[in-house]
Parts: sequence; structure tokens; C-alpha cells
Amino acid sequence: MQFTKERIDALEKHTRTHFINSLSGFKSANLIGTQDSQGNTNLSIVSSVIHLGANPPLVGMIIRPHSVPRHTFENILQTGCYTINQVNQAIYEQAHQTSARYDKDQSEFEATGLTPEYLNNFTAPFVKESRLKYSVKLVEHQHLAINGTEFVIGEIMDVYVDDNAVEADGFIDLHAIDTVAITGLDSYHATTKLARLPYAKK
Amino acid sequence: MQFTKERIDALEKHTRTHFINSLSGFKSANLIGTQDSQGNTNLSIVSSVIHLGANPPLVGMIIRPHSVPRHTFENILQTGCYTINQVNQAIYEQAHQTSARYDKDQSEFEATGLTPEYLNNFTAPFVKESRLKYSVKLVEHQHLAINGTEFVIGEIMDVYVDDNAVEADGFIDLHAIDTVAITGLDSYHATTKLARLPYAKK
Repeated sequence: MQFTKERIDALEKHTRTHFINSLSGFKSANLIGTQDSQGNTNLSIVSSVIHLGANPPLVGMIIRPHSVPRHTFENILQTGCYTINQVNQAIYEQAHQTSARYDKDQSEFEATGLTPEYLNNFTAPFVKESRLKYSVKLVEHQHLAINGTEFVIGEIMDVYVDDNAVEADGFIDLHAIDTVAITGLDSYHATTKLARLPYAKK
Repeated sequence: MQFTKERIDALEKHTRTHFINSLSGFKSANLIGTQDSQGNTNLSIVSSVIHLGANPPLVGMIIRPHSVPRHTFENILQTGCYTINQVNQAIYEQAHQTSARYDKDQSEFEATGLTPEYLNNFTAPFVKESRLKYSVKLVEHQHLAINGTEFVIGEIMDVYVDDNAVEADGFIDLHAIDTVAITGLDSYHATTKLARLPYAKK
């Protein structure tokens, strides 16, 4: 089935959004925890968190200026701090609910029943129910002029993960801690293991 | 289990690489098809393809300058063209094998047994065995000074997808076409559906 560029351009707007959002493949599911300088907390689900490098440990994410995580972006600029909390099967429905357009003074923690947790004196809130989470300090953000998105880059600080999920070589078994994956805008998936493959040699 | 920043910094280098690569969550699995101006083809697996926007339809990926996809990046700069091909369960072992350090004049298509396919006069090769694939034209690339990676942004052109995978609202069922997800550097996963959730309202 071929969709030429012309046919894609002619799709109804929401149809095109669902279609294009499906093309990149499986996406990560993370909750971004922040608070503003007055201590108002914010929590938003983001499917664009991406590994950038291990040395130094860096993580990126894409935020659209007019999307729900806009409050998240404002708080990150204000405080330089955020947390990234992997979404698991027990909380994916609450995590999705954070994408509703709550006002800035209404916390998504209260609205969804997820529990804020403060660890090691870090100023941004973690999600207590998440089984793999870490504190992040803003390093830089790049404005993508082509569509007005922001590419936010942060340095990974402290990591909190369920006991026994970390294997001897450092690999973390995300299947064992029920982390979910996203496709498109709204589809959630559990996983089954196929294999870990050896380092490829020619 | 807490891993402070100090403890992470002290991890053996490969251990830290596996650990940090696990933090972002599930990753997409895609093969990037390119050729140089002499027509030598190249194919490399990339786990950093990310949705950037639906209007215009944009897709991003992160490429490390000293990694295997370096030939891919050189070809993209030379020709401005590449293809993105989702990896499915039938080809994930061959896809992983493309990460071996083949010389520039040796095609990963030949080395792994995947089949190059040319569609609609696009100059970069597709992977015949992929069930969702699309042509991409380079828009821009941004150098990330902090760790020397390149953020490559492209415009989505023509899309080829298995019949019946596209639902009425434009959503593509990646589970139905056996697309796989990656964790860490080397772990491959199939998926099971949890749910599509409705648009969240407060």
C-alpha cells in the first residue's frame, strides 16, 4: 500500500497526525516531573525521550511549544531541574491522563492520583509508583525553526531502579519492571523478550 | 536501589554504556538505507529515530560520528536522500548484524542477506523485507557540541506499508506488522497490546 507525499498531504489533519506519529516505530513512555519556583508541581507524559550519550550521561526530549508539556518546559527553564520516570503497566492509564489540559495551578499529581516523591534533596518531584526514575539537570535547549519544537538536552544525575532489574553488565531489564512502549499518539504496549544479541562482528 | 551520579561515573565504561542506554525506555528499531554518489549501498540499524512533527511530516535521528552509521551519515550528506525501514520479527537478527564494522565498499545488504529495493525513482535503497518504510529527504543537521553527535532532521516523502495495517483514523498497527522494539544496546522485544486510550480530558 503506497501513500505518496501528495496523498499524505491531502489526508484530513487528525488522520495525518495519527499516521505520521506511527512511522517512527515504538516510543518510550516517560512522565516528566517538574515544579515552578513557587513549588507548584507538574507532571506530563512524553513519548519523545531519547538516549543521547553515556559519557557524559545525556538524555534528550522533544517538546512542542503549544502542547500540554509546555508548562513542563516553562518549569524546566525556571528551575533547571526535572525528573524522568518510566511508565509501567500499573500506571499507564494515569500517566495518559496527565495529557489532559489542566491549568497551570492544578497539579497532575493530584488530578491523576500519582504520588509525588522527593529524593536526595532534588527540587523536582519524582513519581513514587515509577520503578525506574532519575533526576536530570538542564544542559541546553535548541529551538527547531522548521516546526517550532524545542529539543531539550539534560544531564542524568541520580538513578533509582527496582532491585534485581540491573544485570551484571549494566543492562537494565525493562521487561522485568513492566515498562510500557507507545505507538502513535495513544496506543500502549507491553513487551515480550525476543533476545539479547551479541556484539556484531563482520 | 540508588545509583548516585558518583557511583554511575565510577562504573566500568561498558557497564555504564549498557546502564545509561537503558534509561530512556523502549526505542524504535529502524534500518537506514543509503547509497553514495557511486551507487555503493549502505544499511545500518539505528535505535534513535524519533517523531518530530506531522505538519510538515518530519522525522529525526541521532548519529554518533565514530559509530557504525557514520557511512550512513556521509551518504546522507552526499545525496540528501535516505530511507527508513522498520525492523520486524522476521529480520531483527539480520538487522542487528548490520552494526558490524563493514568497510565502506562492502554493502550490508549483501553481508546480511537483506534485499535492496528501489521504489518510485528514489535514489536510496529500501529494505524489501520491511513492512513499513518511507523515503526521506534531508532538511538539516545540527551538531551537538556537548558530545559530538549529529541530530539529523528529514522530511517524510512516500510511505509504503502492509495492506490492512492502517486503521480508519490513520493510526498504523505496528503490532500487526510485527515491528520490534529495542532496549539498551542489544535487546529486542515483541509487543502485546494493552489499549488505545481516548483523548484525555480534565
